[in-house]
Amino acid sequence: MKVLLLGAGRSKRMKPITDKNFLNFLGKPLIEHQLELLKNAGLDEVVIVGGKHNLEKFVLCGKDLGMDVSVVEQKDLDTGMCGAVLAAKNKIGSEPVLIFSSNDVVEKSAFESVLEAFEKGDAEGYLLGKVVHEYFPGGYLEISDDGFIKNIIEKPEKGKEPSNLVNLVVHVHRDFSKLVSYLEQAKSDSDDLYEVALGNMIKDGVKMKAVKYDGFWQPIKFPWHVNKVFKFLFDNAKKTISKSAQISKNAVVKGDVIIGENVKILEGAVVNGPVYIGDDSVIATNALVRESNIGKNCVIGFSTEVARSFLGDNVWTHSNYIGDSVIGNNVSFGAGTATGNLRLDEGEISSITDDEKTPTGENKLGIITGDNIRVGINNSFMPGVKIGSDSFIGAGLVIPENIPEKSFVRGEVTLKISENNVDISKMSRDEMKKKIK
Amino acid sequence: MKVLLLGAGRSKRMKPITDKNFLNFLGKPLIEHQLELLKNAGLDEVVIVGGKHNLEKFVLCGKDLGMDVSVVEQKDLDTGMCGAVLAAKNKIGSEPVLIFSSNDVVEKSAFESVLEAFEKGDAEGYLLGKVVHEYFPGGYLEISDDGFIKNIIEKPEKGKEPSNLVNLVVHVHRDFSKLVSYLEQAKSDSDDLYEVALGNMIKDGVKMKAVKYDGFWQPIKFPWHVNKVFKFLFDNAKKTISKSAQISKNAVVKGDVIIGENVKILEGAVVNGPVYIGDDSVIATNALVRESNIGKNCVIGFSTEVARSFLGDNVWTHSNYIGDSVIGNNVSFGAGTATGNLRLDEGEISSITDDEKTPTGENKLGIITGDNIRVGINNSFMPGVKIGSDSFIGAGLVIPENIPEKSFVRGEVTLKISENNVDISKMSRDEMKKKIK
Amino acid sequence: MKVLLLGAGRSKRMKPITDKNFLNFLGKPLIEHQLELLKNAGLDEVVIVGGKHNLEKFVLCGKDLGMDVSVVEQKDLDTGMCGAVLAAKNKIGSEPVLIFSSNDVVEKSAFESVLEAFEKGDAEGYLLGKVVHEYFPGGYLEISDDGFIKNIIEKPEKGKEPSNLVNLVVHVHRDFSKLVSYLEQAKSDSDDLYEVALGNMIKDGVKMKAVKYDGFWQPIKFPWHVNKVFKFLFDNAKKTISKSAQISKNAVVKGDVIIGENVKILEGAVVNGPVYIGDDSVIATNALVRESNIGKNCVIGFSTEVARSFLGDNVWTHSNYIGDSVIGNNVSFGAGTATGNLRLDEGEISSITDDEKTPTGENKLGIITGDNIRVGINNSFMPGVKIGSDSFIGAGLVIPENIPEKSFVRGEVTLKISENNVDISKMSRDEMKKKIK
Repeated sequence: MKVLLLGAGRSKRMKPITDKNFLNFLGKPLIEHQLELLKNAGLDEVVIVGGKHNLEKFVLCGKDLGMDVSVVEQKDLDTGMCGAVLAAKNKIGSEPVLIFSSNDVVEKSAFESVLEAFEKGDAEGYLLGKVVHEYFPGGYLEISDDGFIKNIIEKPEKGKEPSNLVNLVVHVHRDFSKLVSYLEQAKSDSDDLYEVALGNMIKDGVKMKAVKYDGFWQPIKFPWHVNKVFKFLFDNAKKTISKSAQISKNAVVKGDVIIGENVKILEGAVVNGPVYIGDDSVIATNALVRESNIGKNCVIGFSTEVARSFLGDNVWTHSNYIGDSVIGNNVSFGAGTATGNLRLDEGEISSITDDEKTPTGENKLGIITGDNIRVGINNSFMPGVKIGSDSFIGAGLVIPENIPEKSFVRGEVTLKISENNVDISKMSRDEMKKKIK
Repeated sequence: MKVLLLGAGRSKRMKPITDKNFLNFLGKPLIEHQLELLKNAGLDEVVIVGGKHNLEKFVLCGKDLGMDVSVVEQKDLDTGMCGAVLAAKNKIGSEPVLIFSSNDVVEKSAFESVLEAFEKGDAEGYLLGKVVHEYFPGGYLEISDDGFIKNIIEKPEKGKEPSNLVNLVVHVHRDFSKLVSYLEQAKSDSDDLYEVALGNMIKDGVKMKAVKYDGFWQPIKFPWHVNKVFKFLFDNAKKTISKSAQISKNAVVKGDVIIGENVKILEGAVVNGPVYIGDDSVIATNALVRESNIGKNCVIGFSTEVARSFLGDNVWTHSNYIGDSVIGNNVSFGAGTATGNLRLDEGEISSITDDEKTPTGENKLGIITGDNIRVGINNSFMPGVKIGSDSFIGAGLVIPENIPEKSFVRGEVTLKISENNVDISKMSRDEMKKKIK
Repeated sequence: MKVLLLGAGRSKRMKPITDKNFLNFLGKPLIEHQLELLKNAGLDEVVIVGGKHNLEKFVLCGKDLGMDVSVVEQKDLDTGMCGAVLAAKNKIGSEPVLIFSSNDVVEKSAFESVLEAFEKGDAEGYLLGKVVHEYFPGGYLEISDDGFIKNIIEKPEKGKEPSNLVNLVVHVHRDFSKLVSYLEQAKSDSDDLYEVALGNMIKDGVKMKAVKYDGFWQPIKFPWHVNKVFKFLFDNAKKTISKSAQISKNAVVKGDVIIGENVKILEGAVVNGPVYIGDDSVIATNALVRESNIGKNCVIGFSTEVARSFLGDNVWTHSNYIGDSVIGNNVSFGAGTATGNLRLDEGEISSITDDEKTPTGENKLGIITGDNIRVGINNSFMPGVKIGSDSFIGAGLVIPENIPEKSFVRGEVTLKISENNVDISKMSRDEMKKKIK
């Protein structure tokens, strides 16, 4: 069966991260992880819908996996999921298709379940119904007595959910052309033509079944989803320590880790898994890395702590605390700079997305940065702040708000210099020194 | 012999620490340590004089020690020591009594000496005379040729001390009712009625003897006395490491330590005694704790140094320097925050007590905090500063002065953001990286 | 052969370092290293030309080496090298002499080569010609076909150098009195009378030969030359670890090191050579020292990194980053203070010398300090900044510019204190704590 993999989204809500599909988890772009999952579920023919911004990069995907990947362009990205599916109209015809969005990270079993139901049953369509254990603002599947889907109710009032199954875009359509014709006729004022078309199909008696799924599901829409996706992908990956890695006998590596080629872990460093460390990276003296993804060619400098964070490639730290953060590529932090990752009141952290305050659902969140950034010494970043790409941040600053890309950020320095008349040469610390033991 | 233990003081000068009697040293309130000392000296019948603020808590004291502890209330706390003693008038009658103040921390031998003198001798009263080796602004005992106390001279001019014995309130009176009647008749404009009554007794020929004492004595009046009391109590305590404590083989524990249940000491941490660590606390990776009392359920986070400090329960640190400080309960410090514990000129540190500048006699002193405080990242506290309870302290601040309780402290942020035109993506650190070894 | 060692320079460009001749490298003043090099080259009779400011100190030099060192004063320091040589007029007469400046650090072979050429040849003078591999703004030696020096061309245009040999002041004159008479007759508007005299000698047919030298040469004119000189002297020194040094078994010492008497290296500390550590210094818990000269009686405190830096005696650090810096004697740094040692754009760092911006040729440079300085906590020094002697630097400051000597530097503190109404006592971190492992 062909997979229609929707990947044309512009990752607007992920800013300053550019394209989530090409964010490197465990040294590999997310899209490759998605393709591998599909392949492992027996799906190795994939049509990826891309946009102008990432089409060319999609062309190169799946090669190493030996998959049959082709690419179509969604010209008008404002046409949403409907437009994305229609972009593949000429690629798939009336064959069966599995539609999946690169926005969603799920287990292999999600695909296997719908495929199995499709093969055994005779409904026209199968929609993955994610079992939710608490209220979630999605489209709930209403199931009729005969077991078919009766309706999809978008964001019902809490307590009025028709089931505990939320529509997750792992959809199989037995005849793609039928979906296409419904999509072409669907009408809506908002960005929900695909859902409208599905509703019309159901109304017209096209048999659709829900396939229950109680496994992992993490949409990757906002930057604070990145670390959750990392953990899932890490758990599913093979744990290896490269033979070329040099681990000091005074360093400690514990828990599950993946350590790349030529990695150096110096004296007194502690790597406390789950941790991925990319090729050629250095974990320097007395540093601590825990529950994090470290890209390649990074230097986690002396006495730095990186905790629950995602670092891209070529990131340099130096006596920093980087907690619950997502850091792009080619970013460096000067000594003493720290990310605040807790509000003082330990409440939910908000972050500004496209000028709008977004609740993150997290009470631990550091910063999110783009690429190509140099941060000076002794800065203090407030939780949830985003730093745009290609920026310089001075020294000794408190950064309470998002910084636009291509910024040079300085503070104001007012020093009051008066004459010192104390004879410092007479001050001795010999007594203090004697007490050191 | 009954002990009259004076504990009604309001600990005003200890602020923001609330009641010194219930400050937990080695996991146990000071008052319990005092009771234990008394018991070890053979004194297990104690009447504690409390105030409205701590009476109920005193009621529960001494239970575990199997002591006979009863409690009386001093209604008017402005009546000082005289009022405190008179509060026990109906509790003790004309029996002998040992009067002792919970303000003073002394060795067991202090009690034993006066008891022995009382048993062997026939004077009406025995006052502990602390041998002082340099001038101390207290009440000096003038001894007559026949060995009895002739006079008590309050704060004589330096060089005019009548002896090297200072009156320390470990006093035995053979007939408590006689003291009571003198107290009831004493007259003074200031807060020294007890001393006046003693003087009147001596004048009237009531035989009083001094009992020399050259042991440890530390009044606990100001917060900077806390660490000295800790050291004394620690030295006298049994050193044990709980079997349930988990000490990494990469951690170092040296010197005398007491380590509680379920304590974890992680890789690279160093605990350099004298150190007490309360139950369920964590000394995290590469942290250093020396000469300190760490309460229970604390987390001494990555790369923190705690030196010569007293921490209450539920204190969290993270890449901090906490030196020569007294920290309350439920206090956390963000990464990079440091306590200044030395003046630049290394001179004597003053601290503001009740709006008045108080010389501390110390040239090393950090901060003193109340309970329930959250401190952000990269703050700088100046020596001797006090932080009131229930407060938030922002980030990147210099705190040069006391902060009242229930404060939310922020700084002013002025960022100057201009456009950056440097192409950071072209900057490579490969040459730097090669040099790491 | 007598050596005329020119050492009267006032080290103006080295400020706030006072006299480079007496800067202690590996625990010994530079001048002693220079004398030792001369002695090892077979030159043990030295006349040092000093100024009023250092004459008395020169008198004591060379004693331990058993050398015959005498001293003459250059009265007028404005007379430059010519004046310096003439100051020795009565000391040397018409003997041969080797002239060498204490500004230059070279290998022993530099002396040996000119001496050998002098002994074997019959020219009147021999000048060391340093082989340069890229353009250097010095005096180039033009060699005629018969092998003698034809001319010395000062700072020729790049590409128009007459040879790849630059005049380095390791000069032998067979008859000192001849040089003296030329010097006495030389005329110039600028500070180049010695060079003019040499030129006149050549013009008059006095035979001068160049002696090629392709070894180490480092002038020590600016503070950023100090670390290069350290490395050279270190490489040439015997590597020893004193028996009285105490190195914790949890510490790591690697690479080439020289460790003095009674040095203590505590748990978790890493010393990564080339490193010199002077007598009685302490490298404290979890500190890192690499490629640095640490003077005597220093304390490199908890979690400090000192990298590629030169520290004088009695320097105290504490959770600092000191990188690519030159630190005087009796200097201390409060916790969290860091030296910025890279510009954000990683470009060449400038430093202000005598009110003038000086390009340093370095893209890594920290700070340069004088003696007797106390720096508070959490300060941020910008690259290339100089701190004058006898100064105090407050806390939480950014120091972007040179600080004059005898300064007391403070910032402005503006705290905004409002009432906090959050009930912090209800905030629990128990869930966070459970996750620590």
